[in-house]
Amino acid sequence: MDSLNQQLSFLLTADRLKTVLRQTPLTDGSRRENSAEHSWHVALMAMVLAEYAPPGADPGRAATMLLIHDLVEVDAGDLFVYADAAAQARQVEAERAAADRLFALLPPAQASALRALWDEFEERATPDARFARALDRLQPMLINMETSGGTWALHGVTADDVLAKVALIEDGAPALGAHARRLVADAVERGWLAAGQEQARPARSAE
Amino acid sequence: MDSLNQQLSFLLTADRLKTVLRQTPLTDGSRRENSAEHSWHVALMAMVLAEYAPPGADPGRAATMLLIHDLVEVDAGDLFVYADAAAQARQVEAERAAADRLFALLPPAQASALRALWDEFEERATPDARFARALDRLQPMLINMETSGGTWALHGVTADDVLAKVALIEDGAPALGAHARRLVADAVERGWLAAGQEQARPARSAE
Repeated sequence: MDSLNQQLSFLLTADRLKTVLRQTPLTDGSRRENSAEHSWHVALMAMVLAEYAPPGADPGRAATMLLIHDLVEVDAGDLFVYADAAAQARQVEAERAAADRLFALLPPAQASALRALWDEFEERATPDARFARALDRLQPMLINMETSGGTWALHGVTADDVLAKVALIEDGAPALGAHARRLVADAVERGWLAAGQEQARPARSAE
Repeated sequence: MDSLNQQLSFLLTADRLKTVLRQTPLTDGSRRENSAEHSWHVALMAMVLAEYAPPGADPGRAATMLLIHDLVEVDAGDLFVYADAAAQARQVEAERAAADRLFALLPPAQASALRALWDEFEERATPDARFARALDRLQPMLINMETSGGTWALHGVTADDVLAKVALIEDGAPALGAHARRLVADAVERGWLAAGQEQARPARSAE
């Protein structure tokens, strides 16, 4: 198979990402979001929120990472971000096997380049990857806030659970992390998110 | 409203693109594709097929254009590529009004920059735009070939209709245009696409 046909075969395999459902709903609540449209949304965020990237980060390169970051779900499916540690560990293995298979559909040099980009995202090894990962965490929070708590209410997620993810946003894009922290406080106040230990503590010490 | 809140409001409005359906099916035939996941797919194509961009084109910039190229459909909806001229003219007006409203949700400097990028795509004014437009035309052809003719059979589209669009692919990415021309010939042979005048002519002159 020539180079172009390998690339088109990869792109047609990628089409299946449109059928992988995430937990997050659409903002109109009509259905769950799929991983392809999620990937578009976060890549668009990299473009629109470029000014909040940390020093040394290239938002265009982060967008590129975000276009491929979920491709492995074609084989491995999506795992809810608040799944338990054992499920997370199994998912890491499944995604690695998927990356081995999927990127190898491409011509060798391109397969290596895209695999390296995916590894960089997974390892949060660079400012680009940290910015991309921050956006990937922020996007479902924004949607949950638009849908009266969205997946939080549904799965009994607490403010502490969310704040653990917010740390990752703060690391990759400080200004967006600060905003995410305000969203959590707002969600607790509106009753969309159960107050966790970390939320409750300042209130107790003030008594 | 501060700059970040304007940007987040824009990004949440953009979420509605996930509910705009195109004519093209998914490759598994399970449902019609929406414009958000289509935008992801063509941006991914810009990345994977970068080597076929014409001299002077920046595939990364083309990918950026493709992330926003259909945003106007949040207000204007999607029009089938083979709709008649009157419908196409009405759509151009509706999309312009949508661009006026949607990009203006952003802080002024960013609104101007993204609107200029969208105009550039629409006008095919640059190599980047021509490459992006070529990919936007090629993507549904690839999916139609995977789904035994997809929308072609459904809407009685002829080989001539498709070849008129192939000219635009050839203009923006010659190697991909040549491939698209082979796909049309293949589709006619398989009976997925009715042979048009242009297809029939060489056969008649050979009689």
